Amino acid sequence: RHLCGRSSSFEKVRFVNSGTEAVMAMIKAARAYTGRPKIAKAEGAYHGAYDYVEVSQLPNPSNWGDLDSPNKVPLVHGTPKGVLDDVVVFPFNDPERAVKLLDKHAADIACVIVDPVPHKVGLMRASAEFVSALSDWARRNGALLAFDEVISFRISYGGAQETFPVKPDLTSLGKIIGGGFPVGAVAGRTDVMKVLDPQEPRLLFPLSGTFSANPVTMTAGLVAMELYDKAAVAKLNALTASAKDRLRAVIRKADAPVSLTGDGSMFKIHLKRNPPSSYREAYDDKESARVAAGMMNHLYEKNIIVTNSFSCMFSTAITEKEVDVLEEAFRDTLEKFGSELKALRGA
Amino acid sequence: RHLCGRSSSFEKVRFVNSGTEAVMAMIKAARAYTGRPKIAKAEGAYHGAYDYVEVSQLPNPSNWGDLDSPNKVPLVHGTPKGVLDDVVVFPFNDPERAVKLLDKHAADIACVIVDPVPHKVGLMRASAEFVSALSDWARRNGALLAFDEVISFRISYGGAQETFPVKPDLTSLGKIIGGGFPVGAVAGRTDVMKVLDPQEPRLLFPLSGTFSANPVTMTAGLVAMELYDKAAVAKLNALTASAKDRLRAVIRKADAPVSLTGDGSMFKIHLKRNPPSSYREAYDDKESARVAAGMMNHLYEKNIIVTNSFSCMFSTAITEKEVDVLEEAFRDTLEKFGSELKALRGA
Repeated sequence: RHLCGRSSSFEKVRFVNSGTEAVMAMIKAARAYTGRPKIAKAEGAYHGAYDYVEVSQLPNPSNWGDLDSPNKVPLVHGTPKGVLDDVVVFPFNDPERAVKLLDKHAADIACVIVDPVPHKVGLMRASAEFVSALSDWARRNGALLAFDEVISFRISYGGAQETFPVKPDLTSLGKIIGGGFPVGAVAGRTDVMKVLDPQEPRLLFPLSGTFSANPVTMTAGLVAMELYDKAAVAKLNALTASAKDRLRAVIRKADAPVSLTGDGSMFKIHLKRNPPSSYREAYDDKESARVAAGMMNHLYEKNIIVTNSFSCMFSTAITEKEVDVLEEAFRDTLEKFGSELKALRGA
Repeated sequence: RHLCGRSSSFEKVRFVNSGTEAVMAMIKAARAYTGRPKIAKAEGAYHGAYDYVEVSQLPNPSNWGDLDSPNKVPLVHGTPKGVLDDVVVFPFNDPERAVKLLDKHAADIACVIVDPVPHKVGLMRASAEFVSALSDWARRNGALLAFDEVISFRISYGGAQETFPVKPDLTSLGKIIGGGFPVGAVAGRTDVMKVLDPQEPRLLFPLSGTFSANPVTMTAGLVAMELYDKAAVAKLNALTASAKDRLRAVIRKADAPVSLTGDGSMFKIHLKRNPPSSYREAYDDKESARVAAGMMNHLYEKNIIVTNSFSCMFSTAITEKEVDVLEEAFRDTLEKFGSELKALRGA
């Protein structure tokens, strides 16, 4: 298929119906390949609705614990203790602490999961050192490096992984690759993906699904991927970069304690004067969250829809005209919320 | 929506993207509501790809253990031990043994999951006594009764649950309700479904999904459900019943050790003289499986597609003409495989 040509790490691909199913299949493939039960993930990272990756998706100062040994905070009430036991949580972009935490469970970790531009952490890029440290650790310890690119795949023609010196063993995909229809996928190394192959003498990971790889999704996805070629990615990223420049100029002019993070066609608005570099730094206290909600509602009235975490996504349908609307709406929002913003603790 | 009118147990409904996601959401809702970690399920029952329900989906005589205390057999290599610990497995349609097994974990069980016509168990109906015993047990012990009707919903206008004296607290749905597009849903009691309500003071089970309840699936599903009204269900079930009668006549004439189970517009072909009444009775040994595979391939050459477990589904597009083709293909298959069938142990 058209996907496999986009990254050398996509040797085989298997389709499912959502990003949640993609991450679940990726984890189960890693467990089946390694015979190990545990996964490791970054604090604050969102990877869909499979229990294991929901652990510490949304911890807060009252429960996140010490950074050297972050607490495992369940998202859903009633999450079994067995789930928490099989998850290792490490701080994002902190290779030293991450490796120390991984070392404690070295023999039990099936895969280390990383979203290279995790929007709920704060939509900052993973550093090359961080990803290389995780990759080295995984290789040394018989674990797999698993990228969650359900969201980040859009930032380069070959996904965010194109921009790192190391490649993941497995990648989960979703969102844009279905051309608007429900989709998910796991792509990765042939020898790992073999666990899913019913032709193998022993099928380690049987997986079926009524709707998986249905022809409507496959057709729409193929067309979307064909259209989203290198030129389209470059054009969209350039438009987004210029929009961010314009928004930053608006912020400077208003002297607002607001900053932007992001990569490719995604960016995120933070109510902090300096762009945060970690989940804990990016975390909005109650008052910030209240002001942010007001700002998002105001933007909505001005025809700008952002996600409820103040992440913004540009699509290929957006032109300079929409950026004008965004700039004006943003200027108006900063003006309206100016005094509230300046009263915030992060200001 | 149009679904809620079909069963009094569907007080609220939430959409997701597959049957797997529906069952996962149903289990997480039951855990969130009860604050308990464990689920209970029938041996051999298929409920999608969420680890917990995959336990003992496909046990065999070498590992299924004593019927009074069935082993918990993982499906996927590398399934964490914590998953096995949080599942209770009971024999289908055996209320006495089931209740004894449930009693051992009474305080920890969030929900008892039942597919009322489970195709991988053998596509026999759950008995009213069995379902009532599970329902009574759940009520007595603070657990929920959860129906998996992803497949069985088609057998009556209000699903298989319409035909039982007790109603489930939660139901998972999928397949036909999406009109051909990827879909899943959880429906159930208002007070239980509240765990999913973001308007509640404390949201016990946050759940989002990019593709969940997307307009294409919702529109196609609505139209499919409108068309699949009481008259359409009755007509399809009558056609299937007459086809089963005709196939049974073919079996008698050939004196083949073959039998049928099933309900509504679904039936299943067993290579046993008498229809099996349990998973263990229905289980195909290696030789039976080999002959069954040959028969299914032969049917395929005669333009008849059945699932790889020899389950057959009629759709509303099928007419007497297709039943003629089926009857003739089936007659030919029994003739071709006659001696092999008679050599089987179940014969």
